[in-house]
Amino acid sequence: MKGKVFLVGAGPGDPELLTVKALRLLLSADAVLYDELVSPEILKLIPATAQVHNVGKRCGQKKIQQEEINFLMLALADSGLRVIRLKSGDPMIFGRAGEEIEALRRASVHFEIVPGVTAALGAAAAAQIPITHRRKSSAVVFITAHQASNSEVVEWKKLASSGATVVIYMPGHNYSEIASKLKSAGLPGHTPCAIVSRATTPEQRMFRTSIAELELSPRLSAPTLLIVGDVVRFAGSEPFDMASFNKEIPFREELISVFQVDSTSEDPVA
Amino acid sequence: MKGKVFLVGAGPGDPELLTVKALRLLLSADAVLYDELVSPEILKLIPATAQVHNVGKRCGQKKIQQEEINFLMLALADSGLRVIRLKSGDPMIFGRAGEEIEALRRASVHFEIVPGVTAALGAAAAAQIPITHRRKSSAVVFITAHQASNSEVVEWKKLASSGATVVIYMPGHNYSEIASKLKSAGLPGHTPCAIVSRATTPEQRMFRTSIAELELSPRLSAPTLLIVGDVVRFAGSEPFDMASFNKEIPFREELISVFQVDSTSEDPVA
Repeated sequence: MKGKVFLVGAGPGDPELLTVKALRLLLSADAVLYDELVSPEILKLIPATAQVHNVGKRCGQKKIQQEEINFLMLALADSGLRVIRLKSGDPMIFGRAGEEIEALRRASVHFEIVPGVTAALGAAAAAQIPITHRRKSSAVVFITAHQASNSEVVEWKKLASSGATVVIYMPGHNYSEIASKLKSAGLPGHTPCAIVSRATTPEQRMFRTSIAELELSPRLSAPTLLIVGDVVRFAGSEPFDMASFNKEIPFREELISVFQVDSTSEDPVA
Repeated sequence: MKGKVFLVGAGPGDPELLTVKALRLLLSADAVLYDELVSPEILKLIPATAQVHNVGKRCGQKKIQQEEINFLMLALADSGLRVIRLKSGDPMIFGRAGEEIEALRRASVHFEIVPGVTAALGAAAAAQIPITHRRKSSAVVFITAHQASNSEVVEWKKLASSGATVVIYMPGHNYSEIASKLKSAGLPGHTPCAIVSRATTPEQRMFRTSIAELELSPRLSAPTLLIVGDVVRFAGSEPFDMASFNKEIPFREELISVFQVDSTSEDPVA
């Protein structure tokens, strides 16, 4: 009997921002392949009986090739296991889900995709920045800082100059280069920006600045996001304190136990 | 004692795609103000003791003005209630959260934003379309079909021609107008598109086409999303059957009962 693979979004960091479905699947996993950016609090939810593999690729150092991740995922499913491929945020946004889906289809392995709260939306909620706004921005762009070819540079320019809110995933710390790209796309130096670090976790921080002064920003801890556009003016003015943000929302042990009891009563694979 | 307002994303439709946090807050609500597009299965989770108000604005017919929503929300919080302002998808994406946040700040009412799975990600997961792809698209744009001023038309053109995957929220049924806009932005007629209707619900449907033939598409039930770009080629080829999509994932009554017991032990307002 073949197993099944679930490509699951782990959300931005806070375990309570897992979807109900993601949480239930995680608690009934036989094997979990997770990316580096999935938060430790979420990894703690994985049952002790599950095989757990860190397949993260951090800071450009490719510890594991995509082909190796695909191979491992397929091998585990082939041995009949219920495999959770856990990705931070949403699997379909900068998560290489496309390549994994192709591999799963080629191998005729059953799979299902479980969407998640993408990092930009976790950051926007925590920083109180409405990333679209009726009067300020009627579109939003999600993009990464790393663009290779010439055609992609053109794309970046069009996107940045469109008037949409721009959310840059994985901006890294080369802020002066990003600022140059934004300025050469025609954005005024006074355009507000916010760097949001580790949104929805206890280490969450935000730094507000402008494109002109972006290069003077502190190097906040990864994962970070850079939000660029007039909507950043609406950011919360209070100190950005995750302890109070999350005070009212303890993560429930009871919830976990409910799922753990139930998961055994269910056929593990379709 | 003043109450507190939670701006909460209800996700794309499937109750299991609520976040754990959203579910817990909903089950402990004193009052819920919800939008038309929140799915009936989610509304069933609201406790019978809560005040429930439909503040939806459907198909341009403004049943309730934004100012009236703000007024009601503030009045309920002023009377000491724990108010859930429930929006489909994520509150910060085309949800007018900006205006509600401004009203809450002006009135010095405590509030918190709970992000959700935005409709585009629910649709992408259900249709198996990776909306970014290492080889095909390194950016994604979320936009609505309704753009008023001239400056916004320019923006639309830049965004559509950027090479990014374009996800059009609330496309309506005037497909020939949308196709014209996409073509005048320079997109080739053979560019693949998918209309995804009621994603992640039992009535989920998808129709794949191209910009050239978009106007011949069936009028699928709202809410729909239009996904435009090469990544649509990766869409699942199997019949798009929500019954099988969701077969393995029954929504748990047990889960609800856990939260209901717990919610009473918690201080309702910060």
